[in-house]
Amino acid sequence: MSLTSALALTYEGDFTLSNDKPFRLLSGEILPHVTLHYAIYGALNEARDNAILVPHALSGSARVADWWPQLFGENAIFDLAKDCVIGINLIGSCYGSTGPTSLNPATGKPYGRDFPLVSVKDNVRAQAELIRHLGINQLRVVIGGSIGGMQAMQWAIDFPEMVGHCVAVGSAPLSALALALNHLQRQAIFDNPTSGLSLARQIAMISYKSAELFAERYGRHPNRNGEDPHRSLSERYNVGGYLNYQGEIFTRRFDPDAYLIITKLMDNFDPQLGYATLSAALSRITARVLLIGIESDWLFPPEDVEALATQMKAAKVAVEYAKLITTHGHDGFLAEPEQFVPAVRKFLQA
Amino acid sequence: MSLTSALALTYEGDFTLSNDKPFRLLSGEILPHVTLHYAIYGALNEARDNAILVPHALSGSARVADWWPQLFGENAIFDLAKDCVIGINLIGSCYGSTGPTSLNPATGKPYGRDFPLVSVKDNVRAQAELIRHLGINQLRVVIGGSIGGMQAMQWAIDFPEMVGHCVAVGSAPLSALALALNHLQRQAIFDNPTSGLSLARQIAMISYKSAELFAERYGRHPNRNGEDPHRSLSERYNVGGYLNYQGEIFTRRFDPDAYLIITKLMDNFDPQLGYATLSAALSRITARVLLIGIESDWLFPPEDVEALATQMKAAKVAVEYAKLITTHGHDGFLAEPEQFVPAVRKFLQA
Repeated sequence: MSLTSALALTYEGDFTLSNDKPFRLLSGEILPHVTLHYAIYGALNEARDNAILVPHALSGSARVADWWPQLFGENAIFDLAKDCVIGINLIGSCYGSTGPTSLNPATGKPYGRDFPLVSVKDNVRAQAELIRHLGINQLRVVIGGSIGGMQAMQWAIDFPEMVGHCVAVGSAPLSALALALNHLQRQAIFDNPTSGLSLARQIAMISYKSAELFAERYGRHPNRNGEDPHRSLSERYNVGGYLNYQGEIFTRRFDPDAYLIITKLMDNFDPQLGYATLSAALSRITARVLLIGIESDWLFPPEDVEALATQMKAAKVAVEYAKLITTHGHDGFLAEPEQFVPAVRKFLQA
Repeated sequence: MSLTSALALTYEGDFTLSNDKPFRLLSGEILPHVTLHYAIYGALNEARDNAILVPHALSGSARVADWWPQLFGENAIFDLAKDCVIGINLIGSCYGSTGPTSLNPATGKPYGRDFPLVSVKDNVRAQAELIRHLGINQLRVVIGGSIGGMQAMQWAIDFPEMVGHCVAVGSAPLSALALALNHLQRQAIFDNPTSGLSLARQIAMISYKSAELFAERYGRHPNRNGEDPHRSLSERYNVGGYLNYQGEIFTRRFDPDAYLIITKLMDNFDPQLGYATLSAALSRITARVLLIGIESDWLFPPEDVEALATQMKAAKVAVEYAKLITTHGHDGFLAEPEQFVPAVRKFLQA
């Protein structure tokens, strides 16, 4: 099967929850109308037991093959000859599902800054309705990185009967440092939506990579095109030019209010939410679980991922922990499939 | 000697360089007029060989005892019964020396954003003129942390005959990650001077502390006063409240343009500047040197400080390297004198 046909979308469209029944959020607020935008690659088999759900991270979308193409292929993780891969855009995002750019029925204008807080738990509950609508009783695998991993774990906790395998990479409740980084990114956007979104993305890019990778790639080299940082305030080192470019292209594709909502969703992920104790939450899990830490990830340190695996083990979950050895930092789950793919394949084939 | 009298200023005043002869900067630009604001604690002895110069870090001032009081005392590092401690405000800062808040003679208005780039090397050259003016041929010690350490090392390189001992803690040429952090801080100020200065300070505060310290102090606790981060965008975790407060109080005491100039000075520190090779620069040093890395410092990783010590050793410098074991991160040199003071005392008494 060629890569092109392997990555061809089978279906892309919208699903409206519960015939417009208001959707009550964990924050206490209500969304009068929720649409999920989703994408399907490959096809469901007759038994409908070959579905793999791939929730996305902060800036991703339902179109899994757009941002995780390395996982598609006969010898990768998603073999479309056998697997049916489903992506669903997060509520609160700006790639098709209801979010801040959607029209607020109460005003007839986009929600913008008035969009209510949405949680990982809210999203997973909405996704479960779509999955049932597709006639799927159990997802063979839910797999994601970062916020995608949070959703995978939340799925395994809230809908244990619907998840066969759960794989989360570079994912755990945020540390105080990660909460701080998100807080500052939102503050940049509060101060000025457009330039703030660029700055927020640049702060985030720092946290997605490692100091070692930055040193290798950029060192103390001046920016290309002859800029001399010793000459004037505006002349940059190479790493500054790289970050500015990343910030600029991001503002062309992402909505500042969606960024606020999704970073807050990321902050608020906590497996215990809605249960008496963390152990009570984790002990609901019946899926086989693989948690993967990334060695140079300082946004989601591998120690935090391993600690979560230990807590799952204590709650009698069939959990395995693995670590990717890479200098790519948090982005390692996207940038370096060489270790990730075999680790997941081994887990799924066991 | 009581702490109060020990910390009493002997003198605080201004020194104008070279009777207003224009001061040519490394950037190629010229400052028509340079004033250095300085402070003296204790007194020079007759031989004028008991002077300790204490250059300050980013937001410090000539008033050493205001920001490094833990170093004063009979059993600390600065014993004013014997030592004469001198602080000099950086050119480009906003605490008395010529900087962006000074009047530009060409316009009669404050320089503001037009203030030229100033380097560590420029500052040290100006400081040397003041030190000679005070009748001091050799400083017994030059000691500083962070940008203060950069100045201490630059002193030892550019004016070897004038430095007996050089102590630099948490100081090395900036890594790509640190260059990135400064770049984003300046960008916040470019976007909006006041809220940007607050945001810049908050980004910096993250880099001054360690993830471990943040986890211990703030964890995932909601902000005090009943804020619930699960309820609305504006409600914060504790670490967010802490950072906002730090940003706010900083805008009351610091100038945004001075912040631009001094972070750029920090970026541009490079011991090799003005010499053919790094080795040629370092081999000029005749002072005994102590470089101290801070274990949890990710702004100036101890590995970078140790690498600089190794390079000095290769250039036949009498250098020692020590490491502070602390979770305080870069701020460890201010926050934890318990290890720092004995390490420096031992070095100076050897």
